[in-house]
Amino acid sequence: MTVDGYHSDSSSPISAAVCNCAVMLTRTSVGVSLRAVKTLRLLVVVLVSLCVFIGVSAASSPAQEESSAMENISTEKKAEESHRQDSADLLIFILLLTLTILTIWLFKHRRFRFLHETGLAMIYGLIVGVILRYVVQVSRANVYPTNCFVNSSPATLLLNISGKFYEYTLNGEISANEVNNMKDNEMLRKVTFDPEVFFNILLPPIIFHAGYSLKRRHFFRNMGSILAYAFVGTVISCFIIGLLMYGCVTLMKHLGKLGGDFFFTDCLFFGAIVSATDPVTVLAIFHELQVDVDLYALLFGESVLNDAVAVVLSSSIVAYQPQGDNSHTFEAMALLKSLGMFLGVFSGSFSLGVATGIVTALVTKFTKLRDFQLLETALFFLMSWSTFLLAEACGFTGVVAVLFCGITQAHYTFNNLSPESQDRTKQLFELLNFLAENFIFSYMGLTLFTFQNHVFNLMFIVGAFLAVFVGRAANIYPLSLLLNLGRRNKIRSNFQHMMMFAGLRGAMTFALSIRDTATYARQMMFSTNLLVVFFTVWVCGGGTTQMLSCQRIRVGVDPDQENSMSFADGSERRSTKQESAWLFRIWYNFDHNYLKPILTHSGPPLTTTLPPCCGPLARFLTSPQAYENECQLKDDDSDLILTDGDISLTYGDIMVSTDTTGAHASGGQAADDLDRELAYGDHELVMRGTRLVLPMDDSEPPFTDHLRM
Amino acid sequence: MTVDGYHSDSSSPISAAVCNCAVMLTRTSVGVSLRAVKTLRLLVVVLVSLCVFIGVSAASSPAQEESSAMENISTEKKAEESHRQDSADLLIFILLLTLTILTIWLFKHRRFRFLHETGLAMIYGLIVGVILRYVVQVSRANVYPTNCFVNSSPATLLLNISGKFYEYTLNGEISANEVNNMKDNEMLRKVTFDPEVFFNILLPPIIFHAGYSLKRRHFFRNMGSILAYAFVGTVISCFIIGLLMYGCVTLMKHLGKLGGDFFFTDCLFFGAIVSATDPVTVLAIFHELQVDVDLYALLFGESVLNDAVAVVLSSSIVAYQPQGDNSHTFEAMALLKSLGMFLGVFSGSFSLGVATGIVTALVTKFTKLRDFQLLETALFFLMSWSTFLLAEACGFTGVVAVLFCGITQAHYTFNNLSPESQDRTKQLFELLNFLAENFIFSYMGLTLFTFQNHVFNLMFIVGAFLAVFVGRAANIYPLSLLLNLGRRNKIRSNFQHMMMFAGLRGAMTFALSIRDTATYARQMMFSTNLLVVFFTVWVCGGGTTQMLSCQRIRVGVDPDQENSMSFADGSERRSTKQESAWLFRIWYNFDHNYLKPILTHSGPPLTTTLPPCCGPLARFLTSPQAYENECQLKDDDSDLILTDGDISLTYGDIMVSTDTTGAHASGGQAADDLDRELAYGDHELVMRGTRLVLPMDDSEPPFTDHLRM
Repeated sequence: MTVDGYHSDSSSPISAAVCNCAVMLTRTSVGVSLRAVKTLRLLVVVLVSLCVFIGVSAASSPAQEESSAMENISTEKKAEESHRQDSADLLIFILLLTLTILTIWLFKHRRFRFLHETGLAMIYGLIVGVILRYVVQVSRANVYPTNCFVNSSPATLLLNISGKFYEYTLNGEISANEVNNMKDNEMLRKVTFDPEVFFNILLPPIIFHAGYSLKRRHFFRNMGSILAYAFVGTVISCFIIGLLMYGCVTLMKHLGKLGGDFFFTDCLFFGAIVSATDPVTVLAIFHELQVDVDLYALLFGESVLNDAVAVVLSSSIVAYQPQGDNSHTFEAMALLKSLGMFLGVFSGSFSLGVATGIVTALVTKFTKLRDFQLLETALFFLMSWSTFLLAEACGFTGVVAVLFCGITQAHYTFNNLSPESQDRTKQLFELLNFLAENFIFSYMGLTLFTFQNHVFNLMFIVGAFLAVFVGRAANIYPLSLLLNLGRRNKIRSNFQHMMMFAGLRGAMTFALSIRDTATYARQMMFSTNLLVVFFTVWVCGGGTTQMLSCQRIRVGVDPDQENSMSFADGSERRSTKQESAWLFRIWYNFDHNYLKPILTHSGPPLTTTLPPCCGPLARFLTSPQAYENECQLKDDDSDLILTDGDISLTYGDIMVSTDTTGAHASGGQAADDLDRELAYGDHELVMRGTRLVLPMDDSEPPFTDHLRM
Repeated sequence: MTVDGYHSDSSSPISAAVCNCAVMLTRTSVGVSLRAVKTLRLLVVVLVSLCVFIGVSAASSPAQEESSAMENISTEKKAEESHRQDSADLLIFILLLTLTILTIWLFKHRRFRFLHETGLAMIYGLIVGVILRYVVQVSRANVYPTNCFVNSSPATLLLNISGKFYEYTLNGEISANEVNNMKDNEMLRKVTFDPEVFFNILLPPIIFHAGYSLKRRHFFRNMGSILAYAFVGTVISCFIIGLLMYGCVTLMKHLGKLGGDFFFTDCLFFGAIVSATDPVTVLAIFHELQVDVDLYALLFGESVLNDAVAVVLSSSIVAYQPQGDNSHTFEAMALLKSLGMFLGVFSGSFSLGVATGIVTALVTKFTKLRDFQLLETALFFLMSWSTFLLAEACGFTGVVAVLFCGITQAHYTFNNLSPESQDRTKQLFELLNFLAENFIFSYMGLTLFTFQNHVFNLMFIVGAFLAVFVGRAANIYPLSLLLNLGRRNKIRSNFQHMMMFAGLRGAMTFALSIRDTATYARQMMFSTNLLVVFFTVWVCGGGTTQMLSCQRIRVGVDPDQENSMSFADGSERRSTKQESAWLFRIWYNFDHNYLKPILTHSGPPLTTTLPPCCGPLARFLTSPQAYENECQLKDDDSDLILTDGDISLTYGDIMVSTDTTGAHASGGQAADDLDRELAYGDHELVMRGTRLVLPMDDSEPPFTDHLRM
C-alpha cells in the first residue's frame, strides 16, 4: 500500500478594486438611465476582470520545499495560505452573484424577459469556468510517493512525523482516474465544493421558502391533482425514463460505445433524479404576467412536491441491494425493502417537518413573543433550521422535512406572528432563497468546465433528451386524462401543453447528480444532466412567453377576482363544490374546526367543538381571541367552500352569499374586510422562485389584450 | 513514523419531541401569563431533556469491525454516520439557542435585568457542557497502530488501500497530550468547533452590525476620545497587563508552580487578547434605561474599535520572530517588523473596508436598484460579505475590514437605499448579530467542560484578574485625565468609574484565545480568559444597574433633547464648538461638501463645490436630487456644529438658529422636518448589541427620578 501526499501554495492577490473604481468615476455621459446602463456595463467588465485577476493570482504559485526544521512554521503557513485560497474562491462566487444581480436589474430595467436570472447565473458561471480552465495557469502539485500500511480506511488519521502529530480527516473515496487529476489541476479542484454543501446549506432555504410561500388557496383547491402529478407522475416518469435509457445503453453496449458499466438500477436512478422539475423561471414569468392561477398552482405544487419525491426515490433506488453479489439482479425482497424505505423515509420526514411546524405554532401561540420581533424571528428561523438537522440526525431526508415544515409554518405559525415578524420572516427566507438559488445556478455553469470527469457521450445524450421528453409526456397527458374524469374544472389541453413545456430541470436534479460521481455511469449521468438543465432553462424558460401566446393562455388574471368572476360555464362553479365536497371539504372542516383553533388564535373555540370530556384541555388550548373573533378574518381558504346558487357562509353575524352570477352581496363592513383580507393574504403569499416584480405601469403586459379569453 | 487511525460510529436518535409536546398539552392552568410562564418552564425542561437525549443517543455506539469486502459500503456508512453525528451536534446548539430565546422572553416579561441574554446563554452552555461531560457515556475509539513514512505533513493525503484511494485533508497539528484525549473522548471532540469558525462565520456579522449601527452623531462628537481609548488605551492595557503577568509568571516559575514555558511574548499576547472589551450587556442596559448618550458613545465606540486593535495587535505580537533561535529575546528589527505589520494590516484592512463601502454606495447611487428591494438587499449583503473575503484573501484581517465597511455603509450607502431596504438590511444584520452572539456565548459556557486541555492555575488566575483590573484602570484614568485637558465637555469621574466597571470581556477575547491552544501557555491563557469572561459578564454585567445608581449617572435621557437642553454650565456649550472646531469641523466640512455628494444623493451639488476644471466629472457624479435638495434633511451630523450665541446654520432657504437657552427657533416646516429627521435618524441607529427593547410604559425606569441631575 502506498500513501501519496501532495500540496500546493498560492501567493497573495492584490486588490485592483480601488484602481478600477477610479476608472469608472472618470467616465462622463448624459442622461440618467443611459449613464446608469453604461456604468453598469463598465462595472460588469470590472467585476469579470476582478474574477480573472483573483483567479490568476490565487493560482499562480510555485510549489515549495520545506526543511524539517521549518516544519512547524510551514504547517501554519500552509493552513494560512489554504485559508486565503478558500477566501479567494468564495470571493469569486460572491462576485459572480453580484454580477448576476446587477444584470438582473438591467434586464428588468429593459423589460427583457427571455433570460431569467437563473439562466443568467448559469451563463456567468460558464464564463468564469472557461476562464478558470483555459486562461488561468495552474501549478502542478508535488506528489510524495510513500509507503503506508493500514487495514481499512479510518475516519480520522494521525500522522506521526518526527514526534509531531498531524490530524487528517477522511474526505471520501477517490476514483483512480481522479487521482491523476488531483495531481494536475489544483485550481479547478479548489473551486469545487463538497456536494454535501448543496444538501446541507443551499437546498434547505430554497425548499423551505417554496413551502413557506405556497399559495394556499389554489394549492388546496387543486390538491388532488398536484398530489397525483407529484407522486404518481414522478414514479411514472422515473420508470419510463429508466426503461428508455436502459434500451439506449443496451444499444450503446451493442455498438461498443459504452465505456463502462451501466446497470438497470443506474437507469432508474437517472430517471428518478431527472424527474425532479424546477420551473422557477416559468413560475416567475407566470407571476409577472399574472397567468391563470390554477395553472400556476398545478405547476408550482407539482414542482415543490416532486422534488421531495425524487430525493427519496433516488435514495431508495440506491439502497436497492440484493443479497450476495453486486450484479444488480432483480430480487423481490430487495425491492420491497427499497419500497419500504421510500415510504418510511418520506413519511418520517413528513412527520418531523409537520411536528416542528406544530411545535413552533404552539410556542408562538402560548407566549407573548410577538412583542419582541427580533426574538420571534430568531425563534422561527432556529426552529425551521432545527427541522432539517433533526431529520438528518434521525436518518431521514432533511429537505423533505423542511418542505413540510415550511407548509405547516405558512398555514399555522404565520398567523400567530406579529405583522412585523410576518414581514421579517418572509423577507429573510426570500433573500436566502434568492442567494442560494443563484449560487447553485452559477455553480452549475462553472461545473461544466471545472468538473474533471465529464463523460459526454452523444448517443446517451440524445437518448436522454428523448427519454426526458417522453417521460414528461407520459407523466402529464395520461394523468391529466384520468384527473379530468374526476375534475369538473378540467385541465384544458393548452394547460397540459404548457405543463409539458414547463418541465424545466434545475437545482434538485443538479444536486442529486453531483452527490456521487465516483463511477463511470454516474459521471455520464452528471454530464448529461447538466446539458438537460442548460437546455430546459435557456430554451424552454426563454420560450415561455412565446408558448403562453401560442397556447392562448390568458394573462393578466387578477387572482382576487377569481372568485367573483362569472364563469362562462356554470358547471365550472359547481365543480368547485364537487371537488371541495369530496377531498377538500373533509380536510377543510377538520382543519378549520380543530387544527387551527389548537395551533392558532382563530376560532371557533375548542370549548364548543370538542366533547365535554376534554373540557379542561379545551380551555387550556383555546386562545382568548378565539372567543372574541368568531369571524374568520384571516382564514383565506374559506372561500373555497363558496358555491353557487343560494349558498351562504356564516361568519358570526355577517352573511356572505353569492348568486349564480358570482357577484358578492356583502352584509356589511366586515365582509369587505373579509374580501380584503382574502385578497391581501393571497397576494402576499404568491411568491415562488425569484422576485420579478416590476413596478406596475400601464404599458405592462403586451399579451393581455389578445390573450384574454 | 507511525500512522494511527481510529474511528467511531453512532446510532440513530429517535426524536422525542412529539411525545414531549403531548405532555405539554395536557397541562391545565388558569390565566394567560401564568399559563405562559408555566408552559415555558415545561418547555425549558423538555428542551434540556431533548439535548440530553440527543447527546446520549449520538454518543452511545459500539465500534465496528469491517471486512475488506464490505469496505466500500463501510466508507459510505462512516461518512453518513459522521454526517448524522454532525447534524446532531449542531442540533444541540440550535436547541440551546432556542432555550435562550425563550428564557430571554421570560426575563423581559418579568423585567429581570440582572442576567442579560449573553450571560444566560453562557449558563445554558455550562449546563449542557456538564451533561455532555459527566452524564453522557462516551465510546472509546479504536486505534490502529500502523507504520507510515512521510517526509513532511502534506496538505492532502492519499491513502491507497487495496487499490482504492481515500482522500484525507490536513486539519492541523495535535499536541501530544491531546493525542491521548482524542482516543478517549470522541463525544467531546465532536462538539468542538474549529476555532476558525469564529473568525470566518460568527464574528463578522457581529462586528459588521456593530459598525453598521454605530450612533453616528455621538460617535463623531466624541471621536477624538474614542480613538484615544481604542488605540492608545488598548496598547497601554496590553503592555501593563503583559508586564504584570510577566511578573506573575516569573514568581510562579520561582515557586515552581509553572508547568511549562511562558515567555514575555506570551504575556504580551495575553495582554492584547484580554484588552478587547465587549460590553454588550452594559450597552443593552444603557440603551434600555436611556443613559447619557456621551457615556454610551464612549463605551460603544471604544469597544468596537478596540476589538479591531486587539486582533491586529495580537497578530503582530505572534508575528514577532527574532532571527535565529526561538528564545523570544528582544530584537529591534523584529520589533519594527511587528510594528510595521500592525500598521500595515490595520491600514490595509481599513482601506479595504472603506473601499467596499464606497463601491456599494456608488452602485446604489447610480443604479435604480431601489425599485427592487430584494435585489438591493441581496447586493448590500453580498458586498459587505465580500469585504471580509477580500481582506482575508489579501492577507489582512477580515473582521477589521468589515467593521470599517459597516461604518462606511451606515454613513453613505444607507442613505441611498430605499426605506424598505433600510429596514430589511438593519433587520437582517440585527438577526445575524443576535444569533451569532448568543451562539458564541453558549459555546463559551460549553467549552468550560468540553475543552480537554484546560490549565487552571490559581496563581495565574489571581494574577490575571489583578492585571486586568489594573490594566483597565491604567487605560481609563490617565487617558481621561489627558483628554479632559483638551475636552470642554469633560468626562466626569463617575463616567470614568462606570467605564472602568464596564470593561466586560466577551466574544473577541474568547475567539482570540481559542484560536491557538497548542502550547501550555496558550492553554493556560484560554482557561483563564474563560474565567475572566464569566466573571465580568455575570458580575459586572449583572451589577450594572446598581453601579449606575451608585455613580448617580442619570437615566431616561432623551437623546433628541440633548441639543436643546439648557446646560448648567454655559461653557459646556462652547466646548462643542471648540471641539467641533478642531477635529470634527474639518472632517464635517470635507464629508459634507465632497464625500456625501459623491457617494449619496445629498447636496450641495458638486458642480458648485468642485473647481471648474472638474466640471464634467462633477456633472457625472452629481445626482439630480442634489440640485433639488439643498436642505440637508437627512444629514444628522449637522447639529454638531450648532453652537451657542448667535449662530445660525443655513440650509438653503431655511434658517435654524439657537440662542443661549438652547431653544430652537425654526424657520418653517422644513426645520421641523429636519428635527424630526435628526431625531428619527439617531433613534433608529442607536442599536448596539442585542435588542432589549421593552415596550415602553409609564412604570419604566425606577431610577429616573432620584438620579436625574
